[in-house]
Amino acid sequence: MNIRSNPDTTRPAVTTGGLPSSRKIYAVPATAPDLRVPLREIMLSEGAGEPNLPVYDTSGPYTDPGVTIDVNKGLSRARTEWVKQRGGVEQYEGRDIKPEDNGNVGAAHAAKSFTAHHQPLRGVGDAPITQYEFARKGIITKEMIYVAERENLGRKQQLERAEAALADGESFGAAVPAFITPEFVRDEIARGRAIIPANINHGELEPMIIGRNFLTKINANIGNSAVTSSVEEEVDKMVWAIRWGADTVMDLSTGRNIHTTREWILRNSPVPIGTVPIYQALEKCDGDPVKLTWELYKDTLIEQAEQGVDYFTIHAGVRLQYIHLTADRVTGIVSRGGSIMAKWCLAHHQESFLYTHFDEICDLMRKYDVSFSLGDGLRPGSIADANDRAQFAELETLGELTKIAWAKGCQVMIEGPGHVPLHKIKINMDKQLKECGEAPFYTLGPLTTDIAPGYDHITSGIGAAMIGWFGCAMLCYVTPKEHLGLPDRNDVKTGVITYKIAAHAADLGKGHPAAQLRDDALSRARFDFRWQDQFNLGLDPDTAKAFHDETLPKEAHKVAHFCSMCGPKFCSMKITQDVRDYAAGLGDNEKAALNLAGAGSFGSVGMTMSGVIEDGMAQMSEKFRDMGEKLYLDAEKVKESNKALS
Amino acid sequence: MNIRSNPDTTRPAVTTGGLPSSRKIYAVPATAPDLRVPLREIMLSEGAGEPNLPVYDTSGPYTDPGVTIDVNKGLSRARTEWVKQRGGVEQYEGRDIKPEDNGNVGAAHAAKSFTAHHQPLRGVGDAPITQYEFARKGIITKEMIYVAERENLGRKQQLERAEAALADGESFGAAVPAFITPEFVRDEIARGRAIIPANINHGELEPMIIGRNFLTKINANIGNSAVTSSVEEEVDKMVWAIRWGADTVMDLSTGRNIHTTREWILRNSPVPIGTVPIYQALEKCDGDPVKLTWELYKDTLIEQAEQGVDYFTIHAGVRLQYIHLTADRVTGIVSRGGSIMAKWCLAHHQESFLYTHFDEICDLMRKYDVSFSLGDGLRPGSIADANDRAQFAELETLGELTKIAWAKGCQVMIEGPGHVPLHKIKINMDKQLKECGEAPFYTLGPLTTDIAPGYDHITSGIGAAMIGWFGCAMLCYVTPKEHLGLPDRNDVKTGVITYKIAAHAADLGKGHPAAQLRDDALSRARFDFRWQDQFNLGLDPDTAKAFHDETLPKEAHKVAHFCSMCGPKFCSMKITQDVRDYAAGLGDNEKAALNLAGAGSFGSVGMTMSGVIEDGMAQMSEKFRDMGEKLYLDAEKVKESNKALS
Repeated sequence: MNIRSNPDTTRPAVTTGGLPSSRKIYAVPATAPDLRVPLREIMLSEGAGEPNLPVYDTSGPYTDPGVTIDVNKGLSRARTEWVKQRGGVEQYEGRDIKPEDNGNVGAAHAAKSFTAHHQPLRGVGDAPITQYEFARKGIITKEMIYVAERENLGRKQQLERAEAALADGESFGAAVPAFITPEFVRDEIARGRAIIPANINHGELEPMIIGRNFLTKINANIGNSAVTSSVEEEVDKMVWAIRWGADTVMDLSTGRNIHTTREWILRNSPVPIGTVPIYQALEKCDGDPVKLTWELYKDTLIEQAEQGVDYFTIHAGVRLQYIHLTADRVTGIVSRGGSIMAKWCLAHHQESFLYTHFDEICDLMRKYDVSFSLGDGLRPGSIADANDRAQFAELETLGELTKIAWAKGCQVMIEGPGHVPLHKIKINMDKQLKECGEAPFYTLGPLTTDIAPGYDHITSGIGAAMIGWFGCAMLCYVTPKEHLGLPDRNDVKTGVITYKIAAHAADLGKGHPAAQLRDDALSRARFDFRWQDQFNLGLDPDTAKAFHDETLPKEAHKVAHFCSMCGPKFCSMKITQDVRDYAAGLGDNEKAALNLAGAGSFGSVGMTMSGVIEDGMAQMSEKFRDMGEKLYLDAEKVKESNKALS
Repeated sequence: MNIRSNPDTTRPAVTTGGLPSSRKIYAVPATAPDLRVPLREIMLSEGAGEPNLPVYDTSGPYTDPGVTIDVNKGLSRARTEWVKQRGGVEQYEGRDIKPEDNGNVGAAHAAKSFTAHHQPLRGVGDAPITQYEFARKGIITKEMIYVAERENLGRKQQLERAEAALADGESFGAAVPAFITPEFVRDEIARGRAIIPANINHGELEPMIIGRNFLTKINANIGNSAVTSSVEEEVDKMVWAIRWGADTVMDLSTGRNIHTTREWILRNSPVPIGTVPIYQALEKCDGDPVKLTWELYKDTLIEQAEQGVDYFTIHAGVRLQYIHLTADRVTGIVSRGGSIMAKWCLAHHQESFLYTHFDEICDLMRKYDVSFSLGDGLRPGSIADANDRAQFAELETLGELTKIAWAKGCQVMIEGPGHVPLHKIKINMDKQLKECGEAPFYTLGPLTTDIAPGYDHITSGIGAAMIGWFGCAMLCYVTPKEHLGLPDRNDVKTGVITYKIAAHAADLGKGHPAAQLRDDALSRARFDFRWQDQFNLGLDPDTAKAFHDETLPKEAHKVAHFCSMCGPKFCSMKITQDVRDYAAGLGDNEKAALNLAGAGSFGSVGMTMSGVIEDGMAQMSEKFRDMGEKLYLDAEKVKESNKALS
């Protein structure tokens, strides 16, 4: 099922076929029977004694055996009809592609153009265009119905279980409901607390939602650079990233063929694509920030909006007056976008044109429903620079810009750092929520130490799990190559899996009602020695199986009731089964008797063994009935403990 | 310098030679000039403009080019003299090695015996033997002086910097001082808040300390099993683990040759070695827990104490009356030791012999100063089972046992879970401190989700960083092979590096006075494009360099002022240097003027841009002087933010 062959060498090769023992299923929302919302069903082995597990599926049609993939043609554009049906848009000729759009690449190095061309759509007049505008008017769009269905992970009847799990979480003021309805989605978008990045020209999109009352999402960065990589590699990386769980993908290309690369990616992407338009604008003026102009930048925004980019990183918070605040930093300005704008501001001794033209940017992005990802151009690039005045001054400005963008009808999220030690992570989340009116936070890591180049997926995965728990809505992955080189295919996978772990750990911590279902299913498989189920329920079945096979390669061992740690002679899990059998045979009186059987002759050193023994038989019997037979879900104690963090 | 060749195939091959651009240095404590306390000095490139950086060094003589390593002979046993000098011990014949000690292995499969034999020492009479007893009597041992020097990382004169860093941390009630003195070490040990695991028969030991007011430590597990691996591999893994930073190593061997393997490891180990004696005891009765007896177990303790094992995991908290509390768990009892004892208790319907004979165990361990690592035999093996009654009932018993062990003169630490979601981690630390009188906590992970077999170093590294921050003194690593197979050499390294990251992130969060020095040095190297310094200051220079070379392999690129992300034409860090040059040229008046230069024509959408603009020129100028030129170290704000975690 895992195919990556390509007889036609002129087009990118991508990986298709489902994950092991998984099949693509589609949920049909009751209120919109024409929608087909994808899920991946993990099929358990015969005799598992429990139902298959549906999980969130970002992988798009690539894992649907019923869809013929042709990267040259791109994915089907079903969503274009939704946009047209609700009106308020016009189809128009669109901007011509210019040689500078691809860095004036010569014929020898030009990538093959994408074959199909779609005339772009744009909003006309005052009719609502963006998801924010629809939400504010009380209108539920198909995108909203779609994401509501998607967020429920196939759950319909499990509300009781869900509520128990919720009660056990600690969400720091988030309001994750037991079940997501389209109306809840609409309300969250109207409040600005969530966004559905969905350019009206991205017809291939399978909509998803970003907000702290939904599943925590992750982004994977790809993109060629001036130094290395090709169009083929980037399309392949996109498909590879979503196969393993990337919810959105940012194309950060900076070299030649930048327009063409993006076209190939967009036409083949079922997930939202984000970009940093200033990167391309810079390519159009020979890489010299000083030559940047508002006109050139605006033209780039239109170019990308017409292609269908779903969100733009705009570093409009890097203001002239903040720049010298970075002068004494250990690592100055590490954001590329931030440093480009800093250079421009200093060279012209003028306020950033992104800031002075922000209202025009809003008007333009609204017409296509391109979401803002307000960039943190002054984010800290080292532990020493975390939470400094430059960073927080910019964040305050991003808060102001958020309100302007909302007033203009746009969807907004806010980018965050960077490098932050453990004890300074929560203040980032707190301040972001306060300054930016609860607009979704989208952070890079943060990296919790600077001392492990080569392992920054891990230094940052720690920070990402924590900030996700605290309320961050989307986590931008960091790969092992961070600070050292460009991620290859393996790095992309490692980054994605690491961030799926962080996002899922955050969801468990917040008490997301569906999160623990997968942990429980996997743990039951582990306890039952259903090895294949354990592999298949994991985030990366291939690696889990390969690791197991290194020690115990034989097929027979996949059904063995032991593992390589203890061997066949002795096994802790097997003994536990004996315990279980034993306990099942005990009556209440026997349990009570058992409580005292072991008191023995202790205490010879003259110290009392307080606790259970002294409680006596009667109380203990009651205690066991109360506590022993069920989980210890004492939410109050948990909250009390976390409160003490001061 | 990285040598792993072995002309003599009968002895284990181990890796010797220093890490890249590092040299072994020795600090000499003022109060004990005969001691030589190892440090690793990372030598920076010419023109770095700052001093070389001394870092903690766990690697032992293997990285000292002045020491000839002969694994057949073992390391020198300098510490034996310290023990003899202070008296109270006798040398004696010792227990004979029996065939059952090596699982009755036949000649065909027997590992080669270690050549040298050292008669064991043991305490006699009431004279103090253990570090705890010396500390309680107000006596500072050489071990205490040694670890005090070691914890200061070569710092002598940096107290001012150290205190600033301390003020910025959040240590949750720990009391990390700016500088460690031998008296502070003694006091912490006397309070039971720290231990120096140091069996008097482990003469090869370079002492180290475990406690929450010291650097966070990590343990690496090795050991052969009934299914796979050999003596050679295990000795190699030990040397490999300490090369990358393991502070202690546990030998969890369960197969044949168990005595011989341990002898080879101990005689070649400069770090404390821990074991779980019940594993070997089980081998002595054909792997049948029901056949275990107190006599057989006691004999095993003596066998291992005489060899020099520094700490024993003893699962004495698994009491008969707690066992059925696990019956409804998703994953029952997952601790091997816990399930062995559970099986025994059920089969005999008796209280655990570890519990009923606990006072005898204390008397025995005291004679050799073997530290207790009170095992968590009922730890949760899944997210679903975290913080349940079985787990906490056992922890309460461990608290009782801690006080008994202290009364008997023994050093004690406490083992912790396991699998715990983010929001339930802190309650583990809180409860451990409360129940166990601040005895050091030593946790496995915890894993923060069950859904990523193959990546459990990461699922657990997240939890480890957090619990370390909250006060856990030692973090037991988890490798990528957890739940799937036995770790090989690569897995050991990955596990160690991941846990060094977690421990260091925890130290930064706690505000350890020396922790950030390394982050800052590495970040300065990164900003200055001193590539080799960046690699060498990292936890794994080899991998960092290899990753860099994948994209930019040429030697010239190691001094290039750009990286593969932006390429030579544009580089954010280069622009930052321009900013810095620019800011350096600004006078205060110019800075003030700059604050308003960018106000421009904004506000056209009718919203005010509050904040900096409205503050006016005068205040801003003052603000910048106050805040702009230094780091934003507002400890109060940080504490306030973390307080809100409720």
